[in-house]
Amino acid sequence: MRLRNKPWAEDFIAAHPHIVIPNPEDYKGKWGELFQNDKPLHIEVGTGKGQFVTGMAKANPDINYMGIELYDSVIVSALENALEAGTLPNLKLLKVNGAHLAKFFEKNDVSRVYLNFSDPWPKTRHEKRRLSHGNFLKLYESILVDNGEVHFKTDNRGLFEFSLMSMSAYGMLLKYVSLDLHANMPEDNIMTEYEEKFSAKGQPIYRLESQFLTKKAD
Amino acid sequence: MRLRNKPWAEDFIAAHPHIVIPNPEDYKGKWGELFQNDKPLHIEVGTGKGQFVTGMAKANPDINYMGIELYDSVIVSALENALEAGTLPNLKLLKVNGAHLAKFFEKNDVSRVYLNFSDPWPKTRHEKRRLSHGNFLKLYESILVDNGEVHFKTDNRGLFEFSLMSMSAYGMLLKYVSLDLHANMPEDNIMTEYEEKFSAKGQPIYRLESQFLTKKAD
Repeated sequence: MRLRNKPWAEDFIAAHPHIVIPNPEDYKGKWGELFQNDKPLHIEVGTGKGQFVTGMAKANPDINYMGIELYDSVIVSALENALEAGTLPNLKLLKVNGAHLAKFFEKNDVSRVYLNFSDPWPKTRHEKRRLSHGNFLKLYESILVDNGEVHFKTDNRGLFEFSLMSMSAYGMLLKYVSLDLHANMPEDNIMTEYEEKFSAKGQPIYRLESQFLTKKAD
Repeated sequence: MRLRNKPWAEDFIAAHPHIVIPNPEDYKGKWGELFQNDKPLHIEVGTGKGQFVTGMAKANPDINYMGIELYDSVIVSALENALEAGTLPNLKLLKVNGAHLAKFFEKNDVSRVYLNFSDPWPKTRHEKRRLSHGNFLKLYESILVDNGEVHFKTDNRGLFEFSLMSMSAYGMLLKYVSLDLHANMPEDNIMTEYEEKFSAKGQPIYRLESQFLTKKAD
């Protein structure tokens, strides 16, 4: 994601506290209070410009969505997307670091984690930064419901290979794997900005759904 | 694999009992007697014309190899390949149905199973015939050593997706996954006939290594 300097971003974000939540720590363990319902919560870690999470929120009114993005200059685009989409009471944005999710969520707060076109961090010495690294999986498991799922899309072959191995090593079930999503496009697929760009170039899009398995009591 | 009628095949096979084993049931549980050593045994299920298993036997004299193929008209090519390679005491062929492995092997007889460019059986109603179906995985586990491995290569996307899911559902560890083997060709890769053909056309070759995990005692 290229970062452009947007000096107005901070004020624009602060002016929309009903979408970009200013006090997420207040809702840990009680996100239903924010959404004013007890629908399941699906979060996208690294939401970028928000096309995916906005599209999902439109298509699935019975699910609460939250797009999580660290950078002011990026999340403003997600905010603009959300505003353009009209009133979507089931869509919120969160401007925090994905590595700090445990500050804002606790076990059972989240029903599904989406990772879309995450930074591949191709150098081995950066592999802990990949959002499908075992440390991140542990973090997701700690905020998900039992048997919660991670849904992941990318055009990056190396990152997808790593993610398959990382999730398998963690003991997750690989419920669904597609090595060319657009060859058999699911009807309900919502494309991200990157997905539109890369698939238009003929590059395969990889996708998986993985599930944490409840560990048997020792 | 296209089958050609080779009326001489049966006699040619029978004339080489030191390579195509005529009495495999006699060695169940004691394959070391046949090879006259106790080196680990790696088998290739569906060995086709035998280029892979012959190449592996040449490259790795400290491992015993066995190519398993059902059809007379195909295994004669593997036999010809083996004969052309010169004396390879660590290479044998077995003309049996892969579904009947338990007749000839018992637990701990085999250290590794190779599956290369197996028939994809693309119709869902035929999925039980795919050599990575759960029923076959159970069969391999029953003849492999503890923590034994299955190494699998294919050009067929659907079969590879199925295999990832099937192995994960079985509880196997995906130790290694490549979605384009030839993009980072391992030095020790031995190509099969199909692999040469498909990679020459620019098609990606998929490869995985999976491992059975020893189940904890209940």
